[in-house]
Amino acid sequence: MQIAKVRGNVVSTQKEPSLRGAKLLLLQLVDEEGNPLPKYEVAADNVGAGVDEWVLVSCGSAARIVQGNEQRPLDAVVVAIIDSVRLEDRLIYSKKDQYR
Amino acid sequence: MQIAKVRGNVVSTQKEPSLRGAKLLLLQLVDEEGNPLPKYEVAADNVGAGVDEWVLVSCGSAARIVQGNEQRPLDAVVVAIIDSVRLEDRLIYSKKDQYR
Amino acid sequence: MQIAKVRGNVVSTQKEPSLRGAKLLLLQLVDEEGNPLPKYEVAADNVGAGVDEWVLVSCGSAARIVQGNEQRPLDAVVVAIIDSVRLEDRLIYSKKDQYR
Amino acid sequence: MQIAKVRGNVVSTQKEPSLRGAKLLLLQLVDEEGNPLPKYEVAADNVGAGVDEWVLVSCGSAARIVQGNEQRPLDAVVVAIIDSVRLEDRLIYSKKDQYR
Amino acid sequence: MQIAKVRGNVVSTQKEPSLRGAKLLLLQLVDEEGNPLPKYEVAADNVGAGVDEWVLVSCGSAARIVQGNEQRPLDAVVVAIIDSVRLEDRLIYSKKDQYR
Repeated sequence: MQIAKVRGNVVSTQKEPSLRGAKLLLLQLVDEEGNPLPKYEVAADNVGAGVDEWVLVSCGSAARIVQGNEQRPLDAVVVAIIDSVRLEDRLIYSKKDQYR
Repeated sequence: MQIAKVRGNVVSTQKEPSLRGAKLLLLQLVDEEGNPLPKYEVAADNVGAGVDEWVLVSCGSAARIVQGNEQRPLDAVVVAIIDSVRLEDRLIYSKKDQYR
Repeated sequence: MQIAKVRGNVVSTQKEPSLRGAKLLLLQLVDEEGNPLPKYEVAADNVGAGVDEWVLVSCGSAARIVQGNEQRPLDAVVVAIIDSVRLEDRLIYSKKDQYR
Repeated sequence: MQIAKVRGNVVSTQKEPSLRGAKLLLLQLVDEEGNPLPKYEVAADNVGAGVDEWVLVSCGSAARIVQGNEQRPLDAVVVAIIDSVRLEDRLIYSKKDQYR
Repeated sequence: MQIAKVRGNVVSTQKEPSLRGAKLLLLQLVDEEGNPLPKYEVAADNVGAGVDEWVLVSCGSAARIVQGNEQRPLDAVVVAIIDSVRLEDRLIYSKKDQYR
């Protein structure tokens, strides 16, 4: 999985019927220090992530191993809202501090 | 999924028999600000996208989770025509404005 | 799928038994303007492509959604010989012109 | 598979229910000489790897071919703790020497 | 598939139980001219490849379409030892010449 920051969303009316009701977030991928990478993913979100939160995104067929997504043509899904990222003895990110 | 702009198409007569009837679009991938990336995909289209429209492309086995594509050797499919892309408080793309 | 030009082939005697009879082409990937990219694929060919022809290559599990390849450990397959590639109002490639 | 060094972990409370109990490590990928690459993976760990150990990470649907992960939306998993990496006649890494 | 040169191996004791008995080779990927690329794969080998031999490596779920690997969390496998690579009218590699 990659670490990403929720930055926005994508809206579509004319789409695969199976995607009705899917919430599609625009995620900016970040490196292991939290710096933005020149990469993004549009991913389905079932965990209720909001703008500025850090999340884990899972790509490929994993996107369909989520209840309700089994028959959706998705290749990326938010699987977790991150509480903290620890790199050796440093706390790179803490959701608590972020919102303090 | 990645955001892409429809730029053209690919036509083939001699192909896997299962691909008969598949419409193959040439998509230019764009970054999250809408700038063109040096990447493209040739993707099957079942949603009726046209040149200059922005779409979402799903890659890998997702391409076969679309009615009619189950037995086609596809690795990319257009899953949605985009109405709008929002990045924080900015509207990066709006189909309505595009065609106004 | 990616657009590629057939440039050669790969021959192997000592291989997975299931690959017996598979024709393996060396493909040079090209960009959407037809310029060579520093990327290649060795792909199975069931459509009868020859050197210098432009083809569509499908990667990943798609390679096994082709009759006869279901039980072969392939991750790339030629799915079509390209007749033409159109980019907006320009004809980037036409097989007919190529061989005229 | 890629060679990676365990550098930390990621903690999440609000996540896909199926991920409960999964231990998520932050891995820094290294090249074949052991130099750090600007790439990381957050991977599930079932083999008990600890910080500074070198591991093998398997990506894609392989992540779900591990007991207990079958129904988890994972795209990366630690499959082995490395004892040694040999590159021609040189021993690039030896766990024994590392911890001596 | 990609062309690679066998350069070494990886040994592990503490691993997914299903990987017992799997031989893991360290492969250096090469370009279509045979020049080394800054990429490697650790791949399972069932065809008996040795150091310095050129092989074809198949990635992703293909790694599990090999007898004995069906239930192993692998994402790369050696599928063939290469006899020759031909690029247009040039013989880029010939195993016979290599070992003459």
